[in-house]
Amino acid sequence: MTPGPILVVNPNSSQSVTDGLSAALERFRVPGGPAIECLTIPESPPGIMTQRDVDEAGLRVAALAESRPDASALVIACYSDPGIDVTRSVARMPVYGIQECGALTAMARADRFGVIAIAEGSIPRHIRYLRRMGVEHRLAGELALGGVTVAESGHGAETLARLIGVGERLKALGAGAVVLGCAGMANHRAAAEEALGVPVIDPTQAAVAMALGAILARAA
Amino acid sequence: MTPGPILVVNPNSSQSVTDGLSAALERFRVPGGPAIECLTIPESPPGIMTQRDVDEAGLRVAALAESRPDASALVIACYSDPGIDVTRSVARMPVYGIQECGALTAMARADRFGVIAIAEGSIPRHIRYLRRMGVEHRLAGELALGGVTVAESGHGAETLARLIGVGERLKALGAGAVVLGCAGMANHRAAAEEALGVPVIDPTQAAVAMALGAILARAA
Amino acid sequence: MTPGPILVVNPNSSQSVTDGLSAALERFRVPGGPAIECLTIPESPPGIMTQRDVDEAGLRVAALAESRPDASALVIACYSDPGIDVTRSVARMPVYGIQECGALTAMARADRFGVIAIAEGSIPRHIRYLRRMGVEHRLAGELALGGVTVAESGHGAETLARLIGVGERLKALGAGAVVLGCAGMANHRAAAEEALGVPVIDPTQAAVAMALGAILARAA
Amino acid sequence: MTPGPILVVNPNSSQSVTDGLSAALERFRVPGGPAIECLTIPESPPGIMTQRDVDEAGLRVAALAESRPDASALVIACYSDPGIDVTRSVARMPVYGIQECGALTAMARADRFGVIAIAEGSIPRHIRYLRRMGVEHRLAGELALGGVTVAESGHGAETLARLIGVGERLKALGAGAVVLGCAGMANHRAAAEEALGVPVIDPTQAAVAMALGAILARAA
Amino acid sequence: MTPGPILVVNPNSSQSVTDGLSAALERFRVPGGPAIECLTIPESPPGIMTQRDVDEAGLRVAALAESRPDASALVIACYSDPGIDVTRSVARMPVYGIQECGALTAMARADRFGVIAIAEGSIPRHIRYLRRMGVEHRLAGELALGGVTVAESGHGAETLARLIGVGERLKALGAGAVVLGCAGMANHRAAAEEALGVPVIDPTQAAVAMALGAILARAA
Amino acid sequence: MTPGPILVVNPNSSQSVTDGLSAALERFRVPGGPAIECLTIPESPPGIMTQRDVDEAGLRVAALAESRPDASALVIACYSDPGIDVTRSVARMPVYGIQECGALTAMARADRFGVIAIAEGSIPRHIRYLRRMGVEHRLAGELALGGVTVAESGHGAETLARLIGVGERLKALGAGAVVLGCAGMANHRAAAEEALGVPVIDPTQAAVAMALGAILARAA
Repeated sequence: MTPGPILVVNPNSSQSVTDGLSAALERFRVPGGPAIECLTIPESPPGIMTQRDVDEAGLRVAALAESRPDASALVIACYSDPGIDVTRSVARMPVYGIQECGALTAMARADRFGVIAIAEGSIPRHIRYLRRMGVEHRLAGELALGGVTVAESGHGAETLARLIGVGERLKALGAGAVVLGCAGMANHRAAAEEALGVPVIDPTQAAVAMALGAILARAA
Repeated sequence: MTPGPILVVNPNSSQSVTDGLSAALERFRVPGGPAIECLTIPESPPGIMTQRDVDEAGLRVAALAESRPDASALVIACYSDPGIDVTRSVARMPVYGIQECGALTAMARADRFGVIAIAEGSIPRHIRYLRRMGVEHRLAGELALGGVTVAESGHGAETLARLIGVGERLKALGAGAVVLGCAGMANHRAAAEEALGVPVIDPTQAAVAMALGAILARAA
Repeated sequence: MTPGPILVVNPNSSQSVTDGLSAALERFRVPGGPAIECLTIPESPPGIMTQRDVDEAGLRVAALAESRPDASALVIACYSDPGIDVTRSVARMPVYGIQECGALTAMARADRFGVIAIAEGSIPRHIRYLRRMGVEHRLAGELALGGVTVAESGHGAETLARLIGVGERLKALGAGAVVLGCAGMANHRAAAEEALGVPVIDPTQAAVAMALGAILARAA
Repeated sequence: MTPGPILVVNPNSSQSVTDGLSAALERFRVPGGPAIECLTIPESPPGIMTQRDVDEAGLRVAALAESRPDASALVIACYSDPGIDVTRSVARMPVYGIQECGALTAMARADRFGVIAIAEGSIPRHIRYLRRMGVEHRLAGELALGGVTVAESGHGAETLARLIGVGERLKALGAGAVVLGCAGMANHRAAAEEALGVPVIDPTQAAVAMALGAILARAA
Repeated sequence: MTPGPILVVNPNSSQSVTDGLSAALERFRVPGGPAIECLTIPESPPGIMTQRDVDEAGLRVAALAESRPDASALVIACYSDPGIDVTRSVARMPVYGIQECGALTAMARADRFGVIAIAEGSIPRHIRYLRRMGVEHRLAGELALGGVTVAESGHGAETLARLIGVGERLKALGAGAVVLGCAGMANHRAAAEEALGVPVIDPTQAAVAMALGAILARAA
Repeated sequence: MTPGPILVVNPNSSQSVTDGLSAALERFRVPGGPAIECLTIPESPPGIMTQRDVDEAGLRVAALAESRPDASALVIACYSDPGIDVTRSVARMPVYGIQECGALTAMARADRFGVIAIAEGSIPRHIRYLRRMGVEHRLAGELALGGVTVAESGHGAETLARLIGVGERLKALGAGAVVLGCAGMANHRAAAEEALGVPVIDPTQAAVAMALGAILARAA
């Protein structure tokens, strides 16, 4: 029996972001395994920028989880992990946050890890989240790309160059692995890993891998 | 191009244990994905019981890693994670320890987790390992099955009953997920999860899922 | 010039709860000081029971904060601190959560403190919150009243007796102060403190004291 | 019935410091509330400079607490919190240390806070104190004013300018609130808060607010 | 050149306690090494019972340290480590506290250690001290002998029997080593270690060993 | 009766290193006390450079411990503490690691300490080890000498000058004591301590002092 799909929920309304996620997950669609449906939330703004955006989106993610009892797992594909608590409280399937899974996956690869944020302003929120997770002592540092919008962050040689530069600074701080601190930077993962010489983690792929693992284990 | 295999290394010399691991990972052998080779180390004793067993086995795991440059990833399938540091220092592929991956995967499912050890005597060592990981505050508790050998732990209704009993005690301590603290208890996973009503993590499956994720991401 | 009021927001729709809060804060209405307005949120359910209730109420608290630029401070009077992040992100006035202020105030009175929750089920959420605050090591323990509804928790000799019993167990765990883990138990504070012989903290009073302090300091 | 006074104990013998404290607390003297008596300890040296000064002053604070059973609360108005343990052990009233209350109050306003010390040499002692409190992970940083005596620290445009400069550096380290790390800098609080755009906490005001809160709660 | 003596300061006025310390240190008086002078403080009460006793004794320890510039090291032989900060601030020689050294020495012998306190009431103070040291996570537990005075604690078969009983309970909590939480229980060390089968640490001996090591290293 | 010797095991095969250790421990050979035998392991490489060297050497240290039941204590004289777990698991005598003892001894002298590593590359491993010990929060910083081989590190004015330079940087980071992060730098200890004005700890001497203390206590 085929398991229900993994829902990868982009909590904003930008279909192009969702399409990018879907492309980055192409290889995770294994024959006989669950489908991986990447969903947009049309009621959301085009980008999750403010804490209110996060909290409002979180409730929509939870509603979506309730409306899809057929799903085997749900991944919240926004680095703020919007609605992770509420979605878990209502969902029957496992719910994964990409910030959580990105950090946990980095911790399986290196003693201390670094995070590349899009914007300076989100760093304190991320640090608070790692403290809530009780893993802040594994963080070597978090630094922002700076001067790049979320939309721009997924593409372009200049962004990649910046990203590698920030990665080098994180390595100097002791990072043995680097997490891309946004759902939409998967495009750069392989090139950045090649250039930096340490594992570079796309958090959405990390979360989908964990979801896939739980589903395959269930069937084992 | 097909990626190289995931090596799942049972660091003892019991082929039956290795066969059990292989069976529990059957569903992780996805079409187009990496082969999953479960290997026995014939030079090792039939069980990894003492710290010396652990350290000697560790060096053998590292040697095996060096001898298989074709592999895409290596999983050390013994809950003591023998040789994790040395294997990482010589291997070109990602190296996963099942204790590490079991804990990290449980942390993606619940705020606090419990561990079921085979024997009382290994609990202090596990706690020290979680402290090294910096995640000890997520442990709700670790309790031993007691009165069961490693060989017996993988089978039998009585063992399952004990395991569920210990799981209930861990839930009472606050565990929202339970890790099976041995490579060979995957057989009981589904039934224990069903009975306990919280996620039950087989650590070898957890590690293989992370390895698979890294390989699929690389190909993405 | 009189400072703007302190808004004490009961995020549910039970006017009787709000009235109880207001009565418990009567002495904090000092001449020349800010008014203390206790507000009900009519759109909310009569009680904040689920995580969804928490998250939905949080957005309403934030909206209320925006609609009252005249206020000097805002206290979120529900022990889940619904909307504390989003309200802070939009409000121009200081925003206080009662769970935060209850714990911080207990820490000014004793090395380790205990918390009395209404229901068992909320304890894991509270512990995660203390971990996010980075103060979990000051917690001697948290125990539930059990068998009492939120509505019943504020009144009655039997509830007081239970509360004292739980307080004694917390003292045995090392608690040198006890926090009432709900907005509506202020009625019992004095009697419980008398019986237990250690400080008993009503978290709403604790938060209002901090708010009052910030306002008086501003005027100093 | 009027509650007994809050004693704010300046543990040195400088009446001018005590007068400054009293002025900074003027607004906390609310009608119907407790008197706020600011006391000098004539047997102490004019400034608490050395650890011996701290320990000797501590015993005098405890003696003073014993001699004033009429008081409702006692605040130790020196950032070293001299005698906090011994005073608590003999006093019948709540005893507040300003270092403790300054940090706890900052934690109610921001995730991470900074501290401005007068002198470099006291920073290690303060960090050890925050570790004893178990809250060191909330500290973004502590930096010294430098080149300013305790006496000078309370006044003057140049001191304010330095203070704002140090505050900016603390913000760059991640501080979302700033504690003035001395009893005598309240004069600068409002101007520094205005300039820095984040809450600036005078620790004596913070402690008196907590004391006032406990007294008002008792009367409620 | 012979190094100056190690001063072992019993901060109370009981000569018999001092004599007991001296006897327990007999073997540490090595030929060519420093003398070990055990000193009583006649101005102190016969026992250090209260926090005030601790703080007053601390100042006397500091004064004694200043009056003996000939000494090579000073050990504060009371488990409350009275005056450790002030003595360090004025002394030219290294200053060791026995609570500190007892814990640190236990940590060189076992992953987690237990402490046997004389009285229940001192346990919270000890835990706060371990938190200040940043090593609280290595404590398996601390339990009190109960029903034994400090004077009685150093002698007698019944006390030894209780001590072993408490030691067994600490082992059950995970302690791999046990610290005697008082300066005067050295007499029982060997018998308790024999009975319990884990290292039992007399903290005064532990501190003197560290002092001796620093002196021998200086001469090396 | 003379106690059995303290074995100080240099886990590499360089006799000159062993001779240097022996010289640095000369003063610890006290009349009537245990002999201090410094041993070389001929099967090891001349230096312990890689993690495999560490793990292989560890097994040899354990074997040596088993072959010498006459010994009273064993010190592993390599800063990686090779084989500390396995040696403890098989040895009947206390086993001390110099990294452990160096850190613990520094913690008896200062609130925060620094470590001087030979090479940059070993710092992450040392930090992970301090996390395992649960004492990472006492580390002010660890910095590498740089450009110096292990062989060169023990001698020469230039090395001493570098070492003092690194020590000054550690002091600026808040270190109140400095640990020499290698078994072979004892020669520089006194001069570095003189120049830096803070305690400088040779970790082998620190471990031997603890071993000597345990032996003298046993005989007391």
